[in-house]
Amino acid sequence: MKRPKVVIVGGGFGGLNAAKGLRGAALDVLVIDKTNHHLFQPLLYQVATAALSPGEIAAPIREILRGQENTSVIMGEVLSINKENKTLTLKDGETISYDFLILAVGARHSYFGNDSWENSAPGLKTVADALSIREHILLSFEKAERLEGSGNTEKFLNFVVVGGGPTGVEMAGAIAEVAHTTLFKNFRRIKPETAKIYLVEAAPHILPSYPEHLSIRAEKDLENLGVKVLIRTKVTRISEDGVETDGGFIPSANIIWAAGNQASPLLKTLNVPLDRQGRAIVEKDLSIPGHPEVFVIGDAACAMDKNGKPIIGTAPPAIQEGNYVAKLLCKGLPVEKRPPFRYFDKGYMATIGKGKGIAVVGKWHMTGFLAWSAWCFIHILYLIGFRNRVTVMMEWVAIFFSGQRGVRLINRPIDMPP
Amino acid sequence: MKRPKVVIVGGGFGGLNAAKGLRGAALDVLVIDKTNHHLFQPLLYQVATAALSPGEIAAPIREILRGQENTSVIMGEVLSINKENKTLTLKDGETISYDFLILAVGARHSYFGNDSWENSAPGLKTVADALSIREHILLSFEKAERLEGSGNTEKFLNFVVVGGGPTGVEMAGAIAEVAHTTLFKNFRRIKPETAKIYLVEAAPHILPSYPEHLSIRAEKDLENLGVKVLIRTKVTRISEDGVETDGGFIPSANIIWAAGNQASPLLKTLNVPLDRQGRAIVEKDLSIPGHPEVFVIGDAACAMDKNGKPIIGTAPPAIQEGNYVAKLLCKGLPVEKRPPFRYFDKGYMATIGKGKGIAVVGKWHMTGFLAWSAWCFIHILYLIGFRNRVTVMMEWVAIFFSGQRGVRLINRPIDMPP
Repeated sequence: MKRPKVVIVGGGFGGLNAAKGLRGAALDVLVIDKTNHHLFQPLLYQVATAALSPGEIAAPIREILRGQENTSVIMGEVLSINKENKTLTLKDGETISYDFLILAVGARHSYFGNDSWENSAPGLKTVADALSIREHILLSFEKAERLEGSGNTEKFLNFVVVGGGPTGVEMAGAIAEVAHTTLFKNFRRIKPETAKIYLVEAAPHILPSYPEHLSIRAEKDLENLGVKVLIRTKVTRISEDGVETDGGFIPSANIIWAAGNQASPLLKTLNVPLDRQGRAIVEKDLSIPGHPEVFVIGDAACAMDKNGKPIIGTAPPAIQEGNYVAKLLCKGLPVEKRPPFRYFDKGYMATIGKGKGIAVVGKWHMTGFLAWSAWCFIHILYLIGFRNRVTVMMEWVAIFFSGQRGVRLINRPIDMPP
Repeated sequence: MKRPKVVIVGGGFGGLNAAKGLRGAALDVLVIDKTNHHLFQPLLYQVATAALSPGEIAAPIREILRGQENTSVIMGEVLSINKENKTLTLKDGETISYDFLILAVGARHSYFGNDSWENSAPGLKTVADALSIREHILLSFEKAERLEGSGNTEKFLNFVVVGGGPTGVEMAGAIAEVAHTTLFKNFRRIKPETAKIYLVEAAPHILPSYPEHLSIRAEKDLENLGVKVLIRTKVTRISEDGVETDGGFIPSANIIWAAGNQASPLLKTLNVPLDRQGRAIVEKDLSIPGHPEVFVIGDAACAMDKNGKPIIGTAPPAIQEGNYVAKLLCKGLPVEKRPPFRYFDKGYMATIGKGKGIAVVGKWHMTGFLAWSAWCFIHILYLIGFRNRVTVMMEWVAIFFSGQRGVRLINRPIDMPP
């Protein structure tokens, strides 16, 4: 008898954990991803700011699953899904059929309808994004050094991060460290420590999903790191010259977008209700309405927590959702007997800079060095693969004591403004 | 009084050591490089074969020279030199004047007039080259996995390295390790261990600059690693389908060019005699004829050893030449009192694969594990910066015992053949 075939689209936290959960099951599993690697996205901002190499936070999906004999991995981009025929079509034309489908296709950044802003204000989702932002930031200091004296350096020494969520906060803090510590004494004409880093947030406080007193503490920590936190400030226009806000214009050649997410456009081909962020609104078992064989998990899914609120897309729910769906399929329960998915919220945390962080664990609130230590510990713990854990820890110890960031490579030629 | 200005073009082994040698001298030093980093090129093949990350073998030039107050570093591409006016022109139009000029501009690969081969058979000189080759090799296995069963997989599992010099030997050995060890059990349809790796060399033996018995030993070592060594074989045509040789056609989508070098075209703008490889034929003090203020060093120079033979372009002579020129300038000797440059040949070595190498040190010849250990030791020793030495050593220990190569990342989408 032919074994049922489970197709998992996406090798992020959700997809990878679903695949791992199907180890040894009497099912054929196929994982499809656009790239060949699982990416530890929570540390991607450290690649973008030259602290880590991509290889330290990414591992080939097929390597992770090598011992799992019921599982194949292929590279490919899924363009559309036909849920009636139970097939999906790849960009290169191949059609693949499934008995069960797990969509863990994630999200990209969203510009709220201003797609033209992307050129000047890239977002941070993939290794390629991170390398491009890293090169852009480093090249900007190089251009300023070449131009010093011409009066044109300001925009190359202004950095604007749009969006005060965890990614925006981490990027702003890390750029401040690069400018004020890492590049110390590296230049002869400019002083990188005079670079200005802005964090722009429309809401009354940064990190709006945190308790207010922690958000305020994070704002103070950022200011101490040399970041100018502009709250209640709306971005109205972005161009290659800078950011226009309702509080004025900031000239900048370095704008990073961390303000919004939009789930993968692939979900539109499902013809099911999507929420405002384009996420599929799933049933209690994470399947889509009328199709108990199609699951959506992770950043692509709008699932509810125990209070009936939509779960925010981060790694922990994606992991739990992947595990949950894998268990359902392993047990082969009839649809009506499936227990509902329950998200267990272990807490959430953000790092702000060296020795500074905030964390919420149940009713406990942590700040400062304690929260930062917890953050380091948790992130090392979750980093996949023993090898990565050790080298990342070593890099961090080195950066902590020396302020140095080793991965400051520019491969593109410098393209000087006229 | 204005201090004399020394401009160094190129931050490789020659240029960097010249700059370091000028530390504390009563001279203003300016280093210009196309990229922002010094690259430890002898280990670049390990980036191309997913063993090391670029950040482990490259360091920002301005970071290396940060403590050297008489020295500035800028990024820029020098397009031409006017030796009469003592100026050079950058691609972006800026003109820079010098009192002394040190050209350490290196070499690129040469296709002996068949420039169209470059598309199908890239060479390995820069970090960008290495990342592109790495991605190409890894994508090829991915394509073969997707195509298995269609009868079109052969060219994706054939790897051809053209040129049996040290780089070609190291690349062929490393690709064999990737295919036969690293990727073991990673695929479900193809067997990477059936991949064929060819090393094509026109001469009667590979590594022609080594004593013949060592070359023969290297050939045997390579064959044991699973590399097919094709000596006395001339490449007549290269296309995206494969390599045509006087011994037949090898279908391959993975061709790597390691057969010839050509010094930087910038040297042509000097209007001085060049050798067949386009290197400037320098005087005994490494200056160009009639211009004792212009020096050419490293792979860009044709200097002679004590037997009157041209020195082969590798790191050791480049380092010695950089040090020599720096000393001349520090001492400020009149031209006629300059001692001639003398190359001290400490020996040369190549690694073939795990635990296998050959080395010549004076009259000593080493092979096997001994030569390989010496190779590892020397390369770690010369790797710039304590941080890199430790992490590279850790990677090597991990690869030695596990066969794993961690940096197997593909960022490009897979582009399937029709």
